[in-house]
Amino acid sequence: MTITLYDLPSKLAVKGWSPNPWKARLALNIKGLPYKTIWVELPDVERVCKDIGAKPTGTWRTGTPLYTLPIIHDDTNNAVISDSFEIARYLDDQYPDTIPMFPKGSHTLQAAFKEAHERVALVHLYPLMGVTMVRQLNAPSEHYYRTKKGPSSGATFEEVDLKGEARVEQWKKVREGHEIIASWFSKNEEGQFVMGKDVSFADTMLVAWLRVVGLIYGEESDEWKAVLSWQDGWWARYLKQFDQYLAVV
Amino acid sequence: MTITLYDLPSKLAVKGWSPNPWKARLALNIKGLPYKTIWVELPDVERVCKDIGAKPTGTWRTGTPLYTLPIIHDDTNNAVISDSFEIARYLDDQYPDTIPMFPKGSHTLQAAFKEAHERVALVHLYPLMGVTMVRQLNAPSEHYYRTKKGPSSGATFEEVDLKGEARVEQWKKVREGHEIIASWFSKNEEGQFVMGKDVSFADTMLVAWLRVVGLIYGEESDEWKAVLSWQDGWWARYLKQFDQYLAVV
Repeated sequence: MTITLYDLPSKLAVKGWSPNPWKARLALNIKGLPYKTIWVELPDVERVCKDIGAKPTGTWRTGTPLYTLPIIHDDTNNAVISDSFEIARYLDDQYPDTIPMFPKGSHTLQAAFKEAHERVALVHLYPLMGVTMVRQLNAPSEHYYRTKKGPSSGATFEEVDLKGEARVEQWKKVREGHEIIASWFSKNEEGQFVMGKDVSFADTMLVAWLRVVGLIYGEESDEWKAVLSWQDGWWARYLKQFDQYLAVV
Repeated sequence: MTITLYDLPSKLAVKGWSPNPWKARLALNIKGLPYKTIWVELPDVERVCKDIGAKPTGTWRTGTPLYTLPIIHDDTNNAVISDSFEIARYLDDQYPDTIPMFPKGSHTLQAAFKEAHERVALVHLYPLMGVTMVRQLNAPSEHYYRTKKGPSSGATFEEVDLKGEARVEQWKKVREGHEIIASWFSKNEEGQFVMGKDVSFADTMLVAWLRVVGLIYGEESDEWKAVLSWQDGWWARYLKQFDQYLAVV
């Protein structure tokens, strides 16, 4: 059995910089499944997807198919799966003796969790990420990202980058969003994973995004230190549970 | 064992018009627990809560304690519980042989589901409900609702009621929100409850709100017929599963 994870590289020491591939990697690491990574620069994604028979995961605004990573190829049954949610579901089905990402009955709730995470926190985080993220990319990906995924206004990432008080206010919204999320955890009866004692895919949604914040700003940055200080270190304690699952292979 | 549910009455034949008490009633009905209802007009809620020793569930903008229904009083151990989520949790704990509202590990996910439901659908629904809702209330509650819960601008419910194209657009947003919710259900492996084959508290969140729409507009209204037609009748089929749990006693 060989699983291949297709991921997006960067200039960072760990290479991985994109949240969705991080979710798939976390799922593989949590499940303890052996795999190798193939790194694909952004301008090559569509060609690679077509080469291996991966389906598009959406459409561009123009209506043409949109190909995204992560993808896994599992040569056990020559399966090619796109989209981190579907990858985790596939791994649950194919490897039932590993830790389940979707404990029984939780698929719909975890899809709703993704939406809630997006609406309370990520929408506020996106405007803070653009220019910092794009500067970590290798030249081909940086050029692609700037020309294809730049602000819809046509401005550059630098031009729309929030500064001064606007930036402080934006980070405040991200923190408030994470406080809301942490309040959901207070409903747990036991354990500090989303599903209590059991890790699940919903955890990878939170960890992947925070991991990317730590990586692109840097572990010693004020931004990352602030995240770890939120709510008397609650998020630092939460993230600590995943130290063992962060390997990039 | 006698459980008493404190709920808000109206001029409607079934009396109950408020979504949160409906969640608690649905939980009691699904669990098959015997209970009786005490109806409390809005201006009497605070006094009744204090009389029975119920805790406030929040604060008014002024900082004074806010008392809300539903509340249950369970004379088995003289317990008084406020807030529909906490009521459902209490009933799970106290009556472990009944259908659980929070299957193992689902507390945090269901809290996130509540937030997602609010943000994708309810925020769009609220502006459509005000004047229709307030007109169903008995005089003391109507007066209280108009003076204490009116639009923050100080206008009347009638003055802010959306009309014409603005109203059509608002209903479109509600429908789109429900389409997003239904898309989460498409992740289910089996069954058409939020947690697949097993009903849970998250279902009562959806059913309570839609039930209130049906009640205050009327089962024969264009609004309710539209809801039942959304997505080729998907919501009609979903709601059909709860017909057996709608009794008001």
